[in-house]
Amino acid sequence: MTEAQKARLAMRRGEWTGPTKHTLPGYVKCNLVVLPKADAYDFIVFCLRNPKPCPVLEVTDPGDPEPRLSAPGADLRTDLPRYSVYRNGLREGDVTDVRQLWREDSVAFLIGSGMTWDDPLERAGVPKMKTWVLETKLQTVPAGRFHGPVVVTMRCMTPAQAVIACQLTARFPMNHGSPLHFGDPAAIGADLEHPIVGQPVKEIPAGLVPVFWACGVTPQWVALASKPELMITHAPGHSFVTDLLADQICLP
Amino acid sequence: MTEAQKARLAMRRGEWTGPTKHTLPGYVKCNLVVLPKADAYDFIVFCLRNPKPCPVLEVTDPGDPEPRLSAPGADLRTDLPRYSVYRNGLREGDVTDVRQLWREDSVAFLIGSGMTWDDPLERAGVPKMKTWVLETKLQTVPAGRFHGPVVVTMRCMTPAQAVIACQLTARFPMNHGSPLHFGDPAAIGADLEHPIVGQPVKEIPAGLVPVFWACGVTPQWVALASKPELMITHAPGHSFVTDLLADQICLP
Repeated sequence: MTEAQKARLAMRRGEWTGPTKHTLPGYVKCNLVVLPKADAYDFIVFCLRNPKPCPVLEVTDPGDPEPRLSAPGADLRTDLPRYSVYRNGLREGDVTDVRQLWREDSVAFLIGSGMTWDDPLERAGVPKMKTWVLETKLQTVPAGRFHGPVVVTMRCMTPAQAVIACQLTARFPMNHGSPLHFGDPAAIGADLEHPIVGQPVKEIPAGLVPVFWACGVTPQWVALASKPELMITHAPGHSFVTDLLADQICLP
Repeated sequence: MTEAQKARLAMRRGEWTGPTKHTLPGYVKCNLVVLPKADAYDFIVFCLRNPKPCPVLEVTDPGDPEPRLSAPGADLRTDLPRYSVYRNGLREGDVTDVRQLWREDSVAFLIGSGMTWDDPLERAGVPKMKTWVLETKLQTVPAGRFHGPVVVTMRCMTPAQAVIACQLTARFPMNHGSPLHFGDPAAIGADLEHPIVGQPVKEIPAGLVPVFWACGVTPQWVALASKPELMITHAPGHSFVTDLLADQICLP
């Protein structure tokens, strides 16, 4: 049994309810979005039109909680440590199991996450560092009822680290790929004063350059704005851990 | 007006009815599949589950013939030189215009084509060469009513050329990416005796290695096997020419 399988079983048993961030290095981690089938077509077209923020790694059959391609045998209703639940666009309390909420028409989307290349990036010489999640003035390409701004993650690094990061992340097209911007945050309207995750940023430290990647929070925000009847996601920092290895999916 | 736009207008006017293969170097070319909306969800999930043979570059809104992202202003009903039309899985005669067949629920899929990297590959030192299209014993991952074998293209080249081709095509994940196999055709059950395109292959010339890429004929074959009420595709060799430049989409 792999470390990922052991971890998922611990989550299923309720023994692991903490974050998966910075754990299980090497495994591909995914953002989870579960929607009723009625919303699935527009959402999937939305993701295809916005491949950098919304790369779709897997779509399950309606009602089927098993991600057969990326984690055969797993159960998406129990095998994440913590879930966020939204009804009609409003967030309810987090839960550690969504078996009671799962419906015959539930479709799960596993969406690539930049967390996947934290570890390869560290091995390539760019240490783990503070990350901000920021709304921007960039707009996604709409599809059906789905539209909204592009959300980015920002990391501040040296120019030499940024050169490495550009090359390495370009090899992960299913995990947001290369940066969409670096340098002046105002050029993309990145909202440093009201981060979605992280503390407000007063100034970028001298000698460092902010580098911006499209972020997997984008599809969640966009789905949420459409106020679906029921939407289940992973809780922030509590991504789904697949059996896929980052080092093996980086070359398309 | 770009060369691609001029060419599409000539096609629209019926002045260009010949192939687009080996024309308009540098532009991204696409396979076309048009299906009724009722088939679109399963088809799109099928494509997502099989990203190497079926990379989806664009999906149009139902009834809308304009590919707004890859060729704004183009009309997919008139701007290809030649179309193949299938009803209930049976091929009718080719036509040069599908305005009479277009319906309010028609959804167009533009699917990446290896033709896109013919030109970058030539500039990198691998000349244009004979290509075979072959059925294999590899199976796609099914979705809904869609299932079937993976179809590949085969090119025979020197090992040095194959090394270049692996690297270069890996940079085009939306155009089938890197090869899925090289060497012994039997290892993937490639049917050399009954090529879909090309003459039967008796033997691989000494000193050359056959290299196999997933092929955009796969989604057409698979869609066809499901006998949709109406399916429109580009005629073989008559792909849609977008405004996108191959050199600019190769870095995700």
